[in-house]
Amino acid sequence: MEIKAKSIETFLADLASKSATPGGGSVAAVMGAQAAALVSMVCHLTLGKPKYAAVEEQMQALLEQAETLRHSLLAMIKADVEVFDCVMAAYSLAKETEEQKIYRSAAIQDALKAATEVPLACAKACAKAIALSQVAAEKGSITVISDAGVAVMAAYAGLKSAALNVYVNTGNLKDREFAQAKLAELEEVLKGAGLISEEVYQLVKHKL
Amino acid sequence: MEIKAKSIETFLADLASKSATPGGGSVAAVMGAQAAALVSMVCHLTLGKPKYAAVEEQMQALLEQAETLRHSLLAMIKADVEVFDCVMAAYSLAKETEEQKIYRSAAIQDALKAATEVPLACAKACAKAIALSQVAAEKGSITVISDAGVAVMAAYAGLKSAALNVYVNTGNLKDREFAQAKLAELEEVLKGAGLISEEVYQLVKHKL
Repeated sequence: MEIKAKSIETFLADLASKSATPGGGSVAAVMGAQAAALVSMVCHLTLGKPKYAAVEEQMQALLEQAETLRHSLLAMIKADVEVFDCVMAAYSLAKETEEQKIYRSAAIQDALKAATEVPLACAKACAKAIALSQVAAEKGSITVISDAGVAVMAAYAGLKSAALNVYVNTGNLKDREFAQAKLAELEEVLKGAGLISEEVYQLVKHKL
Repeated sequence: MEIKAKSIETFLADLASKSATPGGGSVAAVMGAQAAALVSMVCHLTLGKPKYAAVEEQMQALLEQAETLRHSLLAMIKADVEVFDCVMAAYSLAKETEEQKIYRSAAIQDALKAATEVPLACAKACAKAIALSQVAAEKGSITVISDAGVAVMAAYAGLKSAALNVYVNTGNLKDREFAQAKLAELEEVLKGAGLISEEVYQLVKHKL
């Protein structure tokens, strides 16, 4: 059964189990998806309210972005498990003959590249969720403003969590040029994210 | 259907919907439960490994604490919705006669007290999850150390998210003595949590 079809209770039990998947990569995507979902909720409960007529168009655009993001992040829950399984499968390839060793090594490196791209995409999506949470916190209805605050914390935790998986997988890459390029992309995404998240959180707290 | 029995996909869709529940309070509990589950996973993948024989007993104790915590936090996903619904139900009581007004006001205040206790308990459970993540990061198997890093980020986000709901509900309480006591408890829980979480995250990052 695909993870997204599992109940929350089963997902948490699977997470806690001896099995290496699902793990932190899926949790990062779930946190990001929760952030996007909360931004959508803030939009839904702001739209159509006379008091917020001035931001109606902006909220509609925000809702569309949040829903697209929620679906992307939902897909990443599964993608993380798939790339991890590929890495494990590559490591368990035969390594008796010289030819097998060469094939196995190449398969591991290919799998690690995919296992770098998925959490990097997740990190970027979470950074986007932080940006959307900021708009929700600034313009959303005061009655659901705390949900924008929860959204930004979930998105930030998702970003930092996804980053760990980028570090893990680039660490084992032999193609250092590729690894450095991906790490540079990640640093760009992380830059200022902590400060912005804290600012959004404080904005929400002061509006309560 | 109880939230924990819903699929992740459905939970996220419900979260994103026009309905005010589930909302940020449930997300806080889910994040805390994910943190506890990841600590359990680190324990499971450390126990029985010859290299980690020295921490076997400590990991066994950590696993028991993490599992208890996971189940407590799982129950809080539902509790958050229940107390929110009680607050809403109290607000919608009749307020025509003087007697009705008095009854309604008392019902709102009672509901708000419960709606303060639930996120405060969630905040305390998330703080406990931070402490357990720290042990997992310090003593757990290096092969799953990144999961301890994800756990601490999820727990911290859960803590800060639950705190927002304590602020919201204490803000509407007339019993200021009760409100101040709960806010003081919360501040005690929050104290140093950000610094410790960042330290645990950096410890994990340097072990990768």
